[in-house]
Amino acid sequence: MSPQVIPPALDRLIQDLTKLPGIGKKTAARLALNILRRPAGEARELAGALNDLHGSIQLCSSCFTFSESDPCAICGDPKRDPSLVCVVEQSGDLLAMEKAGVYLGHYHILHGVLAPMDGIGPTEIKIAELEARLTSGVVKEVFIATSSTVPGEATANYLIDRLQKKPVLLTRLACGIPMGMDIKYADRHTLARAIESRRKTR
Amino acid sequence: MSPQVIPPALDRLIQDLTKLPGIGKKTAARLALNILRRPAGEARELAGALNDLHGSIQLCSSCFTFSESDPCAICGDPKRDPSLVCVVEQSGDLLAMEKAGVYLGHYHILHGVLAPMDGIGPTEIKIAELEARLTSGVVKEVFIATSSTVPGEATANYLIDRLQKKPVLLTRLACGIPMGMDIKYADRHTLARAIESRRKTR
Ligand SMILES: [Zn+2]
Ligand SMILES: [Zn+2]
Repeated sequence: MSPQVIPPALDRLIQDLTKLPGIGKKTAARLALNILRRPAGEARELAGALNDLHGSIQLCSSCFTFSESDPCAICGDPKRDPSLVCVVEQSGDLLAMEKAGVYLGHYHILHGVLAPMDGIGPTEIKIAELEARLTSGVVKEVFIATSSTVPGEATANYLIDRLQKKPVLLTRLACGIPMGMDIKYADRHTLARAIESRRKTR
Repeated sequence: MSPQVIPPALDRLIQDLTKLPGIGKKTAARLALNILRRPAGEARELAGALNDLHGSIQLCSSCFTFSESDPCAICGDPKRDPSLVCVVEQSGDLLAMEKAGVYLGHYHILHGVLAPMDGIGPTEIKIAELEARLTSGVVKEVFIATSSTVPGEATANYLIDRLQKKPVLLTRLACGIPMGMDIKYADRHTLARAIESRRKTR
């Protein structure tokens, strides 16, 4: 395809969109053309949302989820139980857990999983921060809810080893989530059951 | 899910992304969280591309494709044959045709297909503009390359009826494109063969 066939402004948007996860060249072109066909106001609205995103969102200093306030709405909610902390990989997992609607504790977002091949070791994710949360004595149970993927399981096992001697109960999401499935993609009923039947490790 | 769990700025981006075709709530949340995890500069780059999109792109006054110049790069290319005009539904189809690399004529973008149930009749898409292009006598062949979907076929048949008495040869994309497939999703080899074996209608 002769490159000048695609107007540069369209090509720039297509290139930018392909940087997003799961968006290949064809999907990016389809999205960009759809945006172009619709009123300029819609593109500007989306641009505004993107521009405002990082400026108004920070990490909660307790659980490290993305939030516009510190502490976040969950850590600051007096109706939630601070003695129970659910450890998840990413903020998207927190959203999936909340959607299940049965969990009333706090969270801890690791912001990743252990992946030695990609150079992601324990210091690259928020494990030291989790340990620090256990020193105050408020936390009684650490409920590990990493994905049932190979790196998710490896991260869970690493956490179990590392936190074993802490005076907390260690639990994990129950079987119920199909092996290999990222919990973000689990339906809410499956996830609700897995939360309710979480088990103690070892 | 309690709505305050999602920071408003993140929720706004998720809502805006769900307006795009094929982006459901889960995908939008995944994309938005991914953008949030990455440097703010990347979000701003994407925002800039969206803001600049409509401002610098217009429709070519001859073929109606999206272009930063008028005439567009194709209509203005002296090496391309203006006597042959390929009629496609959308600019994305033009990109797919160009990718096949065998078509050296001009284009005409309808910007839609006939869909009476959705209130899209002949005046809603660029059919009168196509007829107007035929008055100068430059165009000798109108090559109809709408998708092999129900509305794509209906649009092709309508065009054939309407243009039948014009002094132009009417041709169509050859069989080769699987029925029901949008030509945007055809692989380039299939599309190249279909272009080469385009047939006269009736
Ligand atoms: Zn928090
Ligand atoms: Zn043109």
